[in-house]
Amino acid sequence: MNTSIDCIPCFVRQTLDAARMSSDDPAVHEQIIRDVLRWLSEMDMSLSPPALAQRIHRRLRELTGIKDPYRMQKEQHNQMALQLLPGLRTQVETSNDPLMTAANLAVAGNIIDLGAKSGLNEHEIHDAIRHAAEKPLEGDREAFRAEVKQAKQILYLADNCGEIVFDRLLVEQLGTHRVTVAVRGMPIINDATLEDAVTAGLTDIVRVIGNGSDAPGTLLEDCSDEFKTAFAAADLIISKGQGNFETLSHCGKNIFFLFKAKCPVVAASVNLPVGTHVLWRTR
Amino acid sequence: MNTSIDCIPCFVRQTLDAARMSSDDPAVHEQIIRDVLRWLSEMDMSLSPPALAQRIHRRLRELTGIKDPYRMQKEQHNQMALQLLPGLRTQVETSNDPLMTAANLAVAGNIIDLGAKSGLNEHEIHDAIRHAAEKPLEGDREAFRAEVKQAKQILYLADNCGEIVFDRLLVEQLGTHRVTVAVRGMPIINDATLEDAVTAGLTDIVRVIGNGSDAPGTLLEDCSDEFKTAFAAADLIISKGQGNFETLSHCGKNIFFLFKAKCPVVAASVNLPVGTHVLWRTR
Repeated sequence: MNTSIDCIPCFVRQTLDAARMSSDDPAVHEQIIRDVLRWLSEMDMSLSPPALAQRIHRRLRELTGIKDPYRMQKEQHNQMALQLLPGLRTQVETSNDPLMTAANLAVAGNIIDLGAKSGLNEHEIHDAIRHAAEKPLEGDREAFRAEVKQAKQILYLADNCGEIVFDRLLVEQLGTHRVTVAVRGMPIINDATLEDAVTAGLTDIVRVIGNGSDAPGTLLEDCSDEFKTAFAAADLIISKGQGNFETLSHCGKNIFFLFKAKCPVVAASVNLPVGTHVLWRTR
Repeated sequence: MNTSIDCIPCFVRQTLDAARMSSDDPAVHEQIIRDVLRWLSEMDMSLSPPALAQRIHRRLRELTGIKDPYRMQKEQHNQMALQLLPGLRTQVETSNDPLMTAANLAVAGNIIDLGAKSGLNEHEIHDAIRHAAEKPLEGDREAFRAEVKQAKQILYLADNCGEIVFDRLLVEQLGTHRVTVAVRGMPIINDATLEDAVTAGLTDIVRVIGNGSDAPGTLLEDCSDEFKTAFAAADLIISKGQGNFETLSHCGKNIFFLFKAKCPVVAASVNLPVGTHVLWRTR
């Protein structure tokens, strides 16, 4: 997916957020924002939004020396989600359709996205959980069910912290013996890395790999050989979040994209309203 | 008021809005946004937000040749407000406190601001009118009442189209014999100019002057002599909207600022939550 000019105000906001998390000095914030504005004025808009975000955040780290500005928020979101987990698990276990309930809750967890919007409150998470209970995923649910039934190797592409705890419920439904979970290789925005998979308890139940990259999506050319091998070997890929969708929607693999449509650009690209819990298939 | 780095995402969004209203060509939108990003990266942040917006919109007009991109929206907002006017007038006439009711409704009309946010629906206007009916203006209402009572020459600084129709109710309460209304000298965003004062019927009841400027606020050094004379002669100034507040809050005159706090930067500067109907005094 190319970058839209509508992504630019969002990049600027994201830069401000990250600058403030990296430094308390307003002069540093101003220097960073000027630097990123100049850089954005010359950007290559044929790149995907995560490819541009990757470069912006690399530059931010260069300017501030802070490797993981979102670390505190990430930890908070993991802990918040872990507290919700027992209730969510009951919801899945008592459901008539545990697979779809778990999938929809995993999409609800995708609200925890500091790339799409500044900050997050518990209220928004509860709204998304309620949304999951009330409205089915929008997409070809029966194809998803059929593909899950016959898949031998499932690669599950995680997205954000907090959300990765919700993902555990779906991973359990998929069957831990055939699932590999991939997380980002390095910190980027509030995306989950290996330590968050540990916190979520995923490393106790499935194979978890880092993808070797610091993009808030999956730029295949940027990923490790280990990830590329897992990607090639999987007969079904379940991909979480807008960033993975933006980078893989035209890659030709058998992928089901699960995400909450949070921005008008992505929502328009799947022809669904902002807020929809999306199950989007591409082959 | 200096420009905050939080104003930047808003400038970028405003640029996109205006670019799209000025041209249907995505290549032109991209050229404009790149140009403005480069320009923003070097801006002088000691200028007020309206001074920067003035320069951005001048550059937009230069690039597109379109003098008044918001003209259609402005006309729609005027007509929408004119349809509401009889009901609002009844609200004022049946009120126990017609002056404060008219002032609060004039602030409700300040929701019609395409600088602070893209687009506007009637729903938001009705919400603001309801807000005016339910919550008093935040500020020194008794000082306002006393100053209005004794003022000899009131200069009323209008802000936006549509809103200027709401202003008529307050102008009528103030007493048309002692009020001069000032509008922008040239089109800028959806701010009201002389033709909108005509549409609102203000020119039939009071003296209306343009301020000679194309800033979405009141940059005194940029205003006409006629305006400066009226400004100096007034013993009470009633100023509508955030832009006028951002440019005049420290000018030393006896001014009551009436506005709906629509952005976090302005809301923080008066220590009130976003959404508040503000009556802010400065001398």
